[in-house]
Amino acid sequence: MIERYTRPEMGLVWDLHTKFAKMMEVEITVAEVQAKMKLIPLAAAKDIRKKSKFSIRRISEIEQKTKHDVIAFVSNLAENVGKNGKYIHYGLTSSDVLDTALSLQIREAGEVLLRSMLTLKRSLKNLIAREADTLCPGRTHGMYAEPTSFGVKIAGFLEELRRNEKRVSQALDQLMICKLSGAVGTYSSLGPEVEKAVAVRLGLRPEKIATQVVPRDRHAELFLALSLLCAGIERLAVEMRHLQRSEVAEVTEGFAQGQKGSSAMPHKKNPISSENVTGLARLMRSYAQAALENIALWHERDISHSSVERVIFPDAFIVADYAVHRMAQLMDGLIVNRKKMSENIADSQGLLFSSQILLALVRKGLAREEAYSHVQRIAHSIGRGDSLEKKLIHDPDVRQYLKAKEISEIFSGKKLRKTLKAQARKALTE
Amino acid sequence: MIERYTRPEMGLVWDLHTKFAKMMEVEITVAEVQAKMKLIPLAAAKDIRKKSKFSIRRISEIEQKTKHDVIAFVSNLAENVGKNGKYIHYGLTSSDVLDTALSLQIREAGEVLLRSMLTLKRSLKNLIAREADTLCPGRTHGMYAEPTSFGVKIAGFLEELRRNEKRVSQALDQLMICKLSGAVGTYSSLGPEVEKAVAVRLGLRPEKIATQVVPRDRHAELFLALSLLCAGIERLAVEMRHLQRSEVAEVTEGFAQGQKGSSAMPHKKNPISSENVTGLARLMRSYAQAALENIALWHERDISHSSVERVIFPDAFIVADYAVHRMAQLMDGLIVNRKKMSENIADSQGLLFSSQILLALVRKGLAREEAYSHVQRIAHSIGRGDSLEKKLIHDPDVRQYLKAKEISEIFSGKKLRKTLKAQARKALTE
Amino acid sequence: MIERYTRPEMGLVWDLHTKFAKMMEVEITVAEVQAKMKLIPLAAAKDIRKKSKFSIRRISEIEQKTKHDVIAFVSNLAENVGKNGKYIHYGLTSSDVLDTALSLQIREAGEVLLRSMLTLKRSLKNLIAREADTLCPGRTHGMYAEPTSFGVKIAGFLEELRRNEKRVSQALDQLMICKLSGAVGTYSSLGPEVEKAVAVRLGLRPEKIATQVVPRDRHAELFLALSLLCAGIERLAVEMRHLQRSEVAEVTEGFAQGQKGSSAMPHKKNPISSENVTGLARLMRSYAQAALENIALWHERDISHSSVERVIFPDAFIVADYAVHRMAQLMDGLIVNRKKMSENIADSQGLLFSSQILLALVRKGLAREEAYSHVQRIAHSIGRGDSLEKKLIHDPDVRQYLKAKEISEIFSGKKLRKTLKAQARKALTE
Amino acid sequence: MIERYTRPEMGLVWDLHTKFAKMMEVEITVAEVQAKMKLIPLAAAKDIRKKSKFSIRRISEIEQKTKHDVIAFVSNLAENVGKNGKYIHYGLTSSDVLDTALSLQIREAGEVLLRSMLTLKRSLKNLIAREADTLCPGRTHGMYAEPTSFGVKIAGFLEELRRNEKRVSQALDQLMICKLSGAVGTYSSLGPEVEKAVAVRLGLRPEKIATQVVPRDRHAELFLALSLLCAGIERLAVEMRHLQRSEVAEVTEGFAQGQKGSSAMPHKKNPISSENVTGLARLMRSYAQAALENIALWHERDISHSSVERVIFPDAFIVADYAVHRMAQLMDGLIVNRKKMSENIADSQGLLFSSQILLALVRKGLAREEAYSHVQRIAHSIGRGDSLEKKLIHDPDVRQYLKAKEISEIFSGKKLRKTLKAQARKALTE
Repeated sequence: MIERYTRPEMGLVWDLHTKFAKMMEVEITVAEVQAKMKLIPLAAAKDIRKKSKFSIRRISEIEQKTKHDVIAFVSNLAENVGKNGKYIHYGLTSSDVLDTALSLQIREAGEVLLRSMLTLKRSLKNLIAREADTLCPGRTHGMYAEPTSFGVKIAGFLEELRRNEKRVSQALDQLMICKLSGAVGTYSSLGPEVEKAVAVRLGLRPEKIATQVVPRDRHAELFLALSLLCAGIERLAVEMRHLQRSEVAEVTEGFAQGQKGSSAMPHKKNPISSENVTGLARLMRSYAQAALENIALWHERDISHSSVERVIFPDAFIVADYAVHRMAQLMDGLIVNRKKMSENIADSQGLLFSSQILLALVRKGLAREEAYSHVQRIAHSIGRGDSLEKKLIHDPDVRQYLKAKEISEIFSGKKLRKTLKAQARKALTE
Repeated sequence: MIERYTRPEMGLVWDLHTKFAKMMEVEITVAEVQAKMKLIPLAAAKDIRKKSKFSIRRISEIEQKTKHDVIAFVSNLAENVGKNGKYIHYGLTSSDVLDTALSLQIREAGEVLLRSMLTLKRSLKNLIAREADTLCPGRTHGMYAEPTSFGVKIAGFLEELRRNEKRVSQALDQLMICKLSGAVGTYSSLGPEVEKAVAVRLGLRPEKIATQVVPRDRHAELFLALSLLCAGIERLAVEMRHLQRSEVAEVTEGFAQGQKGSSAMPHKKNPISSENVTGLARLMRSYAQAALENIALWHERDISHSSVERVIFPDAFIVADYAVHRMAQLMDGLIVNRKKMSENIADSQGLLFSSQILLALVRKGLAREEAYSHVQRIAHSIGRGDSLEKKLIHDPDVRQYLKAKEISEIFSGKKLRKTLKAQARKALTE
Repeated sequence: MIERYTRPEMGLVWDLHTKFAKMMEVEITVAEVQAKMKLIPLAAAKDIRKKSKFSIRRISEIEQKTKHDVIAFVSNLAENVGKNGKYIHYGLTSSDVLDTALSLQIREAGEVLLRSMLTLKRSLKNLIAREADTLCPGRTHGMYAEPTSFGVKIAGFLEELRRNEKRVSQALDQLMICKLSGAVGTYSSLGPEVEKAVAVRLGLRPEKIATQVVPRDRHAELFLALSLLCAGIERLAVEMRHLQRSEVAEVTEGFAQGQKGSSAMPHKKNPISSENVTGLARLMRSYAQAALENIALWHERDISHSSVERVIFPDAFIVADYAVHRMAQLMDGLIVNRKKMSENIADSQGLLFSSQILLALVRKGLAREEAYSHVQRIAHSIGRGDSLEKKLIHDPDVRQYLKAKEISEIFSGKKLRKTLKAQARKALTE
Repeated sequence: MIERYTRPEMGLVWDLHTKFAKMMEVEITVAEVQAKMKLIPLAAAKDIRKKSKFSIRRISEIEQKTKHDVIAFVSNLAENVGKNGKYIHYGLTSSDVLDTALSLQIREAGEVLLRSMLTLKRSLKNLIAREADTLCPGRTHGMYAEPTSFGVKIAGFLEELRRNEKRVSQALDQLMICKLSGAVGTYSSLGPEVEKAVAVRLGLRPEKIATQVVPRDRHAELFLALSLLCAGIERLAVEMRHLQRSEVAEVTEGFAQGQKGSSAMPHKKNPISSENVTGLARLMRSYAQAALENIALWHERDISHSSVERVIFPDAFIVADYAVHRMAQLMDGLIVNRKKMSENIADSQGLLFSSQILLALVRKGLAREEAYSHVQRIAHSIGRGDSLEKKLIHDPDVRQYLKAKEISEIFSGKKLRKTLKAQARKALTE
């Protein structure tokens, strides 16, 4: 047993049994449509619906001989159906079944994943509502920049998640393809009307022009969307890791009763969930790369994509789903340390407001470059215990333009908190 | 000088001069909007529109001192505008200008690229119209499979190109962002109404929740779309390389008067354009990878994406545009060797029709597995000079089910050609 | 159950049980060394050696509470050892055990892989010995270039495999690290002498300066070596796919009694092993990418690499081993069609010898450019049924410089075959 | 002009002029060797050495017609040499010249890069010597773990740089290949003795078995080594970014007189060099990916690698060299804030020493799990103003095993500083 993170809902979708079940559903539906179109006897289709079943062990047995998995699967179905078994797979090539069944599997996987994403959206919304005007330092380059609110911070991640929800949904949707056009996509055995009718029954769409397979740019689009999703989750995870640093300490992942953070250092509480998820985004990027290389198959297709997809389809969905879900749990249990946030703001000695002062000076008529060099000079001279506010109030150059009250009002952050609250709340409506 | 493939139209978009011109356009538009909103004097905005200009040499000079490119740029504008120069960049942070200008540059680059794609679409359509029912071998695993037509083949590539056109357009569209929300995305200096009005004037949309920058998942989406585009072009290029192989010889890239294919082997005519383009797809995949790593910036942003984008924005657009354009030229000049196509079909000794025979036998009531094993046995026993058609006609087992005439009709391919023509033509309408 | 290609020998190495067994071996060895150095009682070490054992189920039970796998593992060992269990893991941090045990696991995996590589080397050598002077067309750009021999062809792959054997061995060797320097690599709990002595016992080397972990550039080097290995295997697989094309047909993968190549097309025999392996190289490239991103851990290490390595260590080794092994089987069973090789040479109508003629003309004093343009002109004018040899013999310009006999000698290929044989054989000696 | 970071020393190596100069050197050396072996007249070789020269403009002119760059180059040389020009390129194919010249270019690029690496090594050594026992917090998961010294920290990076120096050197060395074995690597025109003699003169080695080209796994190995190098630089850059965070503030990149950190926030001083370098590692990883895809060329080679290498050879070397060099400058100018380091240690309230206490308790006979749970309980209960040291001294459970003096000695860190100094200094000797 090789250990792997897998949520059971998603693991199930990629179980070999599910794959064969989807393939069986395709074979049966094709038979029913063919019976309706009088291509095969109606009784045969009924028999096929009623008696079709498979055994993984038996398929594997037959595959030993044929060295072809789909033929083994069809033979197993056929022997279970009996006399009418010969009408199974009529006019089909293996890829017709495989790729159409894959669409069904992907749809199911997509549903599980989108549900996980909904959970994460809910977690983020709760946080935003709660922390809409919780002031905290905004940082660029990892350095204090201007104040923001924790709600606004999270709102940015929620918006990104929404964009990724759209991308994933679109990528899933364009992959909902039913492909029954035969060995080289020319409908040489079955006309487009079979494909169309089967597509309708399965809730899929036909491929306009296929080769033997559904073109792999469609599958690649999905992996790319998943890699965008996971990169977005990674951005959030990295933010959480930064905010949990010992020196920053603005949030904490939960720490359970009895939990231990390190075998050597008893004091440790580590951001292990965020770190875990950060790694998973790297995996996902790598799967996307392999999917891109799968596009340029030879002629009407070669089979080199198959050994890749056998790995990356389950693994990518399992990783994405696990990452999203774990992030949702993390955000649900996140402890927001508002006190430390305002301490950090204080710790900046007022520097977080330097841009407001610059602006106020320009508004009062000072040339931009002059104002900049004043404020820069003062900001860079701040020593231990000083604050930019005090320094400015005592600076004659500055006071020519700004009253002490005007300066203090800026540093109070009052107006700011109101604006931030409104901005954060904007994200609560889709 | 390092040699690089660049079409001038696209090279121009990424010239440093264009970048500064777009930044100037943003600065001026902001001033005009601010004047309209009475945030700065109207005369100032007019002056800024009239007198703004920049010199790359002068900017570089100032940058020596400030070690900050945008500040150097703004200072250069300001000194050219004179007294009212101080109102330039009012309430903005560098990234407001950089990212909004980048959107404008991307729009222009996108237009050039989409025009190249139109050219390629036209080339493919011409080929499809001309070769809709030109029979040729369809191949899976690089082996003869069933017949297809050259028109249907190309139709598949046209459809993929259309999907990529949609992806690229969407990716461009979602990037048409105007971002003026300041140092950490909180509108601390300018309210959202400035951003909105500037966006309208520039034909862009505001970012709902930004950090200091437009979130990088948007840019990554574009690079991913470009990598899908180039992988599609690669698939076409690889097809052309296969079809040009000495043994296949179904098509030829043009070969000019005076051209030489090899310094050692005078007889050589090589598929160099298709090979060139194949390599470019690898480059594009690599740029996409870097773009994905650019997403998880720290906090309200760090600047690590900048050294990456400085390279991959020009290079990716230049590579994509060049690849598409070169492919269009190749397809325009492609010599289709119909004679060799039918010789190759003949060379298959009828094997290309084995699936049709299988199907006919099942239709006549033979069990699928039995029919399969008959046809397989006969097909695998074909010797030099034999043909599947003859073998079948002389096979008593087969003849129990099929008449000689029925067999020959299948091998004639007549019905097939008609279907293929119709299928190819389907792709000519969007 | 998610289906995956795995050879049991390699699967076993990455089984969770093996991981814990290696960790146990590290813990026991540390205890023994510590006893020898009188850091813990001798009786304790003896007890630990004798009574240590673990149960995956029990570890998992404890982990539910501690949420820390190594602590759970150590607790399970300790409870099995009893009173002296408290001396287990003395002075260690989890990563000391994990990373040192990982080295042991990697060593074992490396041995399995190198054995598979030996098998492939043997297969290639057999082919080279057998086909050293089997003439076949050499191709550049997929076009006939000059003749080569099948033995020389394979010799190039053998040489690449040898280079990769060296790379993989070196990468494995530099990873044979014992790291016991504690929580941040400062030997704060155990001095370097414990690490050194344990390293000797385990056949490893200490890390000169570590953080909490063995630095991840070492692990990345291994994944990069594996990706080079697989890319080399891919190059061979792609060659085999080309040579198996219907039109080329110079080699065939074996096809078993009862095997079926396609569910729709009974005639099909496809190069499925080579195609499978081609895909696996894509997977390996992607794992290498993830490994590179794992290097820049934060400070004395974060844990983001862990969720990545949990997947890529087993998967990369399993994929590499499977690919190499399958390729060896393929090469062992490869059917070389010598007749088709000489037919293909004939099919080139002598063009494969154009460079020899060019050279002979220059040798006789004709200016290079003139000679080139003569031969190019003649070569490009060859029609059906013609041959370059005949054309040259009848060309007055050429005959001014070369006698008919001289021309024919070149086209006989006699001298060539001898040289090629010698060249191919060079590769048989290391 | 597209802006790009390039150090002139490295830019020069990849200038088109250098490429042609190297190609000319190869052609001349081949002629000289051929003359010595009496394959061409001695006078011809002398003429070729004396009169060979090229003009990029003229080459480009000829290339318009031949559409083949090497032929154009050879023609230009030949017309400059005159009558004996026909002996240039005798028996060679283009790739013989291109790949051998590329080896020469790579050697030069490697020398520039290794010099930059020496500079960085020197910078790191200076820092280590100076800060060998400067205590600072060691961090795992971004959280306070145990104390380390700044010297030891840097020593880890120096060791990694040494490993990468070895990798880059080895990768360069194995690429120092002279390949003159002709169109498909069979020495059909020139025997191996020419190759050997030219190799000796150029300081290169012959390729044992080549195709038309030097096998691309060799080039890929180099790009992989460069990507390891840059990932190591990235790890250092990320460390510097963390240590510069506002809250950590243990180091600062220099900030020049007149420099401005932000156009909006006058107070800003940002770690822009470390951030820049972080991005460059992403670029390098992406080039490595493309290089891996370049390996599996078709048959005796196709030309798809060429459009890739035209970009990634210059770009990867330029990026690597720039990143290393900028990092060296950064480390040279780095301001180490020792005071803040000890403040941060104090800020940990003694938690950095929890593992030492755990160990001391176990040493005194307390069972590991019990000791752990004592220390964990106390550590997690520390409030504002408390310290672990005081808490432990007042804890009756702990005091049963440890005296107050023993506890305080641990927290003094005295012994530790000495060990760390020794450890850091270990790295100063190779």
